[in-house]
Amino acid sequence: MSETPLSIRAELLDAEDGLGKLRDRFTLPPGVVYLDGNSLGALPAAVGDRVADVVHREWGELLIRSWTESGWWTAPERIGDRIAPLVGAAPGRIVVGDSTSVNLFKALVAAARLAVADDPGRDELLVDATTFPTDGYIAASAARMTGLRLVPVEPAAVPGALGPRTAVVLLNHVDYRTGRLHDLPGLTRAVRAAGAVSVWDLCHSAGALPVGLDEHGVDLAVGCTYKYLNGGPGAPAYLYVAERHQAAFDSPLPGWNSHAEPFAMSPEYVAAEGPRRGRVGTPDILSMLALESALDVWDGVSLAEVRAKSLALTDFFLECVDAYVPPGRVESVTPTAHAERGSQISLRCEDAAGVMAELVRRGVVGDYRAPDVLRFGFTPLYVGFADAERAARTLGHIFG
Amino acid sequence: MSETPLSIRAELLDAEDGLGKLRDRFTLPPGVVYLDGNSLGALPAAVGDRVADVVHREWGELLIRSWTESGWWTAPERIGDRIAPLVGAAPGRIVVGDSTSVNLFKALVAAARLAVADDPGRDELLVDATTFPTDGYIAASAARMTGLRLVPVEPAAVPGALGPRTAVVLLNHVDYRTGRLHDLPGLTRAVRAAGAVSVWDLCHSAGALPVGLDEHGVDLAVGCTYKYLNGGPGAPAYLYVAERHQAAFDSPLPGWNSHAEPFAMSPEYVAAEGPRRGRVGTPDILSMLALESALDVWDGVSLAEVRAKSLALTDFFLECVDAYVPPGRVESVTPTAHAERGSQISLRCEDAAGVMAELVRRGVVGDYRAPDVLRFGFTPLYVGFADAERAARTLGHIFG
Repeated sequence: MSETPLSIRAELLDAEDGLGKLRDRFTLPPGVVYLDGNSLGALPAAVGDRVADVVHREWGELLIRSWTESGWWTAPERIGDRIAPLVGAAPGRIVVGDSTSVNLFKALVAAARLAVADDPGRDELLVDATTFPTDGYIAASAARMTGLRLVPVEPAAVPGALGPRTAVVLLNHVDYRTGRLHDLPGLTRAVRAAGAVSVWDLCHSAGALPVGLDEHGVDLAVGCTYKYLNGGPGAPAYLYVAERHQAAFDSPLPGWNSHAEPFAMSPEYVAAEGPRRGRVGTPDILSMLALESALDVWDGVSLAEVRAKSLALTDFFLECVDAYVPPGRVESVTPTAHAERGSQISLRCEDAAGVMAELVRRGVVGDYRAPDVLRFGFTPLYVGFADAERAARTLGHIFG
Repeated sequence: MSETPLSIRAELLDAEDGLGKLRDRFTLPPGVVYLDGNSLGALPAAVGDRVADVVHREWGELLIRSWTESGWWTAPERIGDRIAPLVGAAPGRIVVGDSTSVNLFKALVAAARLAVADDPGRDELLVDATTFPTDGYIAASAARMTGLRLVPVEPAAVPGALGPRTAVVLLNHVDYRTGRLHDLPGLTRAVRAAGAVSVWDLCHSAGALPVGLDEHGVDLAVGCTYKYLNGGPGAPAYLYVAERHQAAFDSPLPGWNSHAEPFAMSPEYVAAEGPRRGRVGTPDILSMLALESALDVWDGVSLAEVRAKSLALTDFFLECVDAYVPPGRVESVTPTAHAERGSQISLRCEDAAGVMAELVRRGVVGDYRAPDVLRFGFTPLYVGFADAERAARTLGHIFG
């Protein structure tokens, strides 16, 4: 490919990038620009050996002894403590296991119980009207089963919708379609001031930008680990419970793993203290230990640097799109203001599904979201400026 | 070790065992008699290579394309159809994913909704009073959230406890502690005759004996896959919904994977038809595909033969215990009648925890269940008669 001023700038930016060497911690297919790490993160290079060890030695040789000797039993809390610094939580607040949807159900029902215990007059569950669908579906089920009324609200309208009847507010930190970053500190403050309980979905922010759960006083949060945390396809999700709510956290899924003395096999349920209360059944060890290994790529990484690079990447990508794509063919639906941008760029265009298929054919992998969005995720640990330039240039060729 | 009449008989029995060659399908640690496959099944020999392929090629190289190209998206139903013949279900009745506890919650809430829709006067959830604890805890939560009253009942007393107020009955096919096999056909008939909905937990029977879900008219069932199905530690569980209930199955966990058109990302929830309605969030691919590979060991295996060998093994083990252990030191709490016996033998003794630790030290791995039970699981695919003889002989030495 011929050099352009932008491709030369990309090379310079990559040369100056303090995070650029982290790409070696991943195994990426050659020749591919992978901009779908916001859907499935790339494979950390060390995970394969670790999984092989779990299968052959821990399962195959040690068998049942591994529950204690290989630390399987305590993995959900141990790995929760590995995720904690990435989302601004102290140790002992996060437990790993189950899917995001299941954790959402736990969080929403527990939040409803917390809110109603404080004030039985609260009967509304506010949910982001632009949310990723599963959040809305699970919120509807939680509302139905706790006697709350579901109220869909645009995130910007949440402060005006809060009131003495608000029990719970479920919000996404970053909108999965537009890449808009919502104001977690401000909205959390507003929810708290209204006496309601906040539940945040961090799927599209954890690992891409600082979250600050403890600092901003978030009540409950959930997130997945297979996007920016690179845990692997369908890797277990996590649940955060603020320290002040842990003693009253009342799970709708009180499986035996959440019992104070699980091996007493007692017919009476007594909830464990701390994050283990969020566990349900036997943890999924292969996926969980793959995730634990994947989290090693964060050793020594500053989230502030990650955020700075993410913004620089998405700025540069937009600049390249502007330069390469004929006017009027695509329109960014991602906010230009840094304070309102996650780590993805979403471009609206005609026949977005067809355009994305062509991009993939040419080695630029993003994804398509109905009805008309091209979605490009920028994962600062393994995506560089030359990748952003090539993606925009390829898009330009398709329209050229 | 010196030969005894029983050890010679064991050799002859192993030589005649038509399932004996299946042991080669597993990787077992040398020198160990593994009688804990009812807690964590042994490693099928082919799983390691399959998992490595999933990690390196499907995740690492194909990345997001694997959701379609590697069949990840359809894995929960595809693997459900692999489990189906092992529990006597037609294709299209079983979906794999989540833990047993989470599936129990789905099944119990859905069962309550089915029962109450038919007859709003039904307000009791009967649960096996001797159940594995998680079933009781989850049943209590499901009862609380659906307005039912929890009624613990000994399984033998269930027929007498059924009545016009019974909505749902949750039973275990095999008692985890005693190894007692409950009368699934008879109890299911009684529950149905009373107009209630049956939910069976198959954790300790699936893969050890014929279950016959369709044949016996079971309504709903759940089970784990890491015991006799050898899926690996914490492998995903499964949910069975009888065909006649599928259209009305109303899940309390309607995650986006259970939507009729999941990629339409519609704010309105429309439940999928068939088993997919039992799905919740993104399936856990590493564990799920390890399970799929593990199920290959069942190719060409007759469950009738498995059952026959299981009973022969447990009979022979009891005979050896009788011969080797001084009188009065252990007492079997597992029924002697074949019709009432699962695939384990539970022996009560003094200091059971200490005795089991010593057995493990001597290479015989069973497990201990509080307060006084030694539990020995007999997995006919990889346990032989010489194993049973050695286990009993070792137990005799400890008491000798």
